[in-house]
Amino acid sequence: MTKDARKQIREGLEGIVVAETTNSMVDGINGRLLYVGYQIDDLAHYATFEEVVYLLWHKELPTEPQLKAFKATLAQARSLPQTVIDTLRLMPKHAHPMSALRTGMSMLGCVDDDSERAISDESVRMKVVTRIVATIPTIIAAYERIRQGLEPLAPREDLGHAANFLYMMQDAEPGPAAVRALDAYLVLLADHGFNASTFSGRVTAATLADPYSAVTSAIGTLKGSLHGGANQRVMEMLQEIDDPEHAKDWVMARIEAKERIMGIGHRVYKTLDPRAKVLRVMSSELAHESGSTLHAKAVNVADTAVEYFEANRPDLKLYPNVDFYSAVVLDAAGIPVDQFTPAFAMSRSGGWCAHLLEQYRNNRLIRPRADYEGPSERPWLPLWDR
Amino acid sequence: MTKDARKQIREGLEGIVVAETTNSMVDGINGRLLYVGYQIDDLAHYATFEEVVYLLWHKELPTEPQLKAFKATLAQARSLPQTVIDTLRLMPKHAHPMSALRTGMSMLGCVDDDSERAISDESVRMKVVTRIVATIPTIIAAYERIRQGLEPLAPREDLGHAANFLYMMQDAEPGPAAVRALDAYLVLLADHGFNASTFSGRVTAATLADPYSAVTSAIGTLKGSLHGGANQRVMEMLQEIDDPEHAKDWVMARIEAKERIMGIGHRVYKTLDPRAKVLRVMSSELAHESGSTLHAKAVNVADTAVEYFEANRPDLKLYPNVDFYSAVVLDAAGIPVDQFTPAFAMSRSGGWCAHLLEQYRNNRLIRPRADYEGPSERPWLPLWDR
Repeated sequence: MTKDARKQIREGLEGIVVAETTNSMVDGINGRLLYVGYQIDDLAHYATFEEVVYLLWHKELPTEPQLKAFKATLAQARSLPQTVIDTLRLMPKHAHPMSALRTGMSMLGCVDDDSERAISDESVRMKVVTRIVATIPTIIAAYERIRQGLEPLAPREDLGHAANFLYMMQDAEPGPAAVRALDAYLVLLADHGFNASTFSGRVTAATLADPYSAVTSAIGTLKGSLHGGANQRVMEMLQEIDDPEHAKDWVMARIEAKERIMGIGHRVYKTLDPRAKVLRVMSSELAHESGSTLHAKAVNVADTAVEYFEANRPDLKLYPNVDFYSAVVLDAAGIPVDQFTPAFAMSRSGGWCAHLLEQYRNNRLIRPRADYEGPSERPWLPLWDR
Repeated sequence: MTKDARKQIREGLEGIVVAETTNSMVDGINGRLLYVGYQIDDLAHYATFEEVVYLLWHKELPTEPQLKAFKATLAQARSLPQTVIDTLRLMPKHAHPMSALRTGMSMLGCVDDDSERAISDESVRMKVVTRIVATIPTIIAAYERIRQGLEPLAPREDLGHAANFLYMMQDAEPGPAAVRALDAYLVLLADHGFNASTFSGRVTAATLADPYSAVTSAIGTLKGSLHGGANQRVMEMLQEIDDPEHAKDWVMARIEAKERIMGIGHRVYKTLDPRAKVLRVMSSELAHESGSTLHAKAVNVADTAVEYFEANRPDLKLYPNVDFYSAVVLDAAGIPVDQFTPAFAMSRSGGWCAHLLEQYRNNRLIRPRADYEGPSERPWLPLWDR
């Protein structure tokens, strides 16, 4: 292949537009994010997760009766078949919660008789995506309880999506601050263009595989440390810093050693991530209430890093991303560190399913090419001649 | 977005080169396929599946002692942990075998303590991909036996990859013709550029998720009827034709009704698929031995369709693809129809893992963009104002 042709390799597909979407608009230059036309700040302040999922799936905000009906349908779909709970019980207790969620979702796909029909029948598909979003928190919480040696709790239909999740995790009705923080978190992360997990779900669905296959791919893809796994890494990083006062020195030492600072920088945003902006305020409020020093550590890490990079490498345009303050907010809501990425999946499942609805409605196989750079044709050599 | 900019949408990523590979060269125009420089015809005639997997992973054909050692390592890695077998037992007996394989693989990832270390440590990664390729046939056969109400059989280390699979499926040592046919099939389908399942596996791995997450994505993606699911569809189509003599009328009726003929046409090949060429000869040989009419039906369907499209729509360049004759060969080897796609997975796992080795070695997040075509920014409307 000639040198000119080789320049055409689109590494990582950066900047390549694969398809149209009406779910979210990501404006990386100006730091703006819209879901179906609504500013992410407005949604985080005024809407619940259920309302946002309705918006993403139906392209309009629900009226009061529509929202009530949708919340009831979601709440009624929360219970897991016994087979899925038994599958979670089989797992070693040290299995990564994202592996547990991936396997639980895959098993749910084995059990759900609507799975194949959802590929071609739009009303069945709507039932299946509702079930997927409704059951993800139940799978996460059931595995959490099981690995602690406790019985999983049945979901409560009288609680909202965020509150019921915290109840199932903690066996106690959560306080309003924790519910509000988690709900806003779920709203903020629900969709984000063709991020890697959403994209992998669409690649899977585009072969006309069923929605469970697609969401199982998305969960596995979110697991990686360059994607959903980053929020856990941020928390582990913040835990290494013993005191907010030492954050600055700690960051500078890492920068000098040319080590990566988790949660700083984003493939798309070249300015402050609009979700990080909302989460920083929320994290500050929670810290003010609880007295936790985690927020102060996070702010000192972020400000030191931003100041350094703006002064020395302004070309890199590195700012805290959504994972950075997510870690602080999820910790304040009482989520264990290794359940941060599953909490991300719980939110993003709304967007994954919105993208599946788009993909099945107007499908086209997603199949790029590779540039072969191996040896050119060579004659066969029998075993004894090698 | 302006009309000009919209033209830049790369629908389905057709023709877009995402990365380099040294695994296979797909020449769609001339109908050629090379693995690391070797013609697919030579490999199908002279090499075993194990030899081809070694070639794809190490980029050289093995010497005699290297092949012996590799075969032994693979054979020793075939057994499943009890947890995975228990998981297969939990499934409803009517679950799709690809859903069972996807879930079994995902559970294996929960059990394997090397899973996370495989992301960064190349020697651990080699052990894990060996385990993945070695256990796929065991998962398929265990689920087959369980759904029949039988006990799964332990793998036999004294048999090759193809022969041991048939033994575990059928509880009888298979004849040489069936072993040879299945082995050639496994060789022919082991790799094929950035097909959708391989690509989804690379998208998953590129977030630095573990190899089990990546292969679980690949299995789910292969399941779709536009990809691996097509071989099962071809078989179901051939079963609808009662007699080879009626194949021509049957095909013409479908063409007139503008229905799709399964197994005809390929995104990349615009001439006869080189794998279909080898499989057609093999299918003919097997039919000659067994007296089955399936081959005659397939040939009549293919020849009628090719003749019609060459005469009336030469622009479409539709020819039988690899799935077309795969169906006849897998049937002759005694594989149940709904296990055809798992058999494809068994083969392609060699290529999936070769691509994972490439991806982890030289990683870059795969994250394209979407073109937002939803409403432009609009003001928030409280619930009571809607």
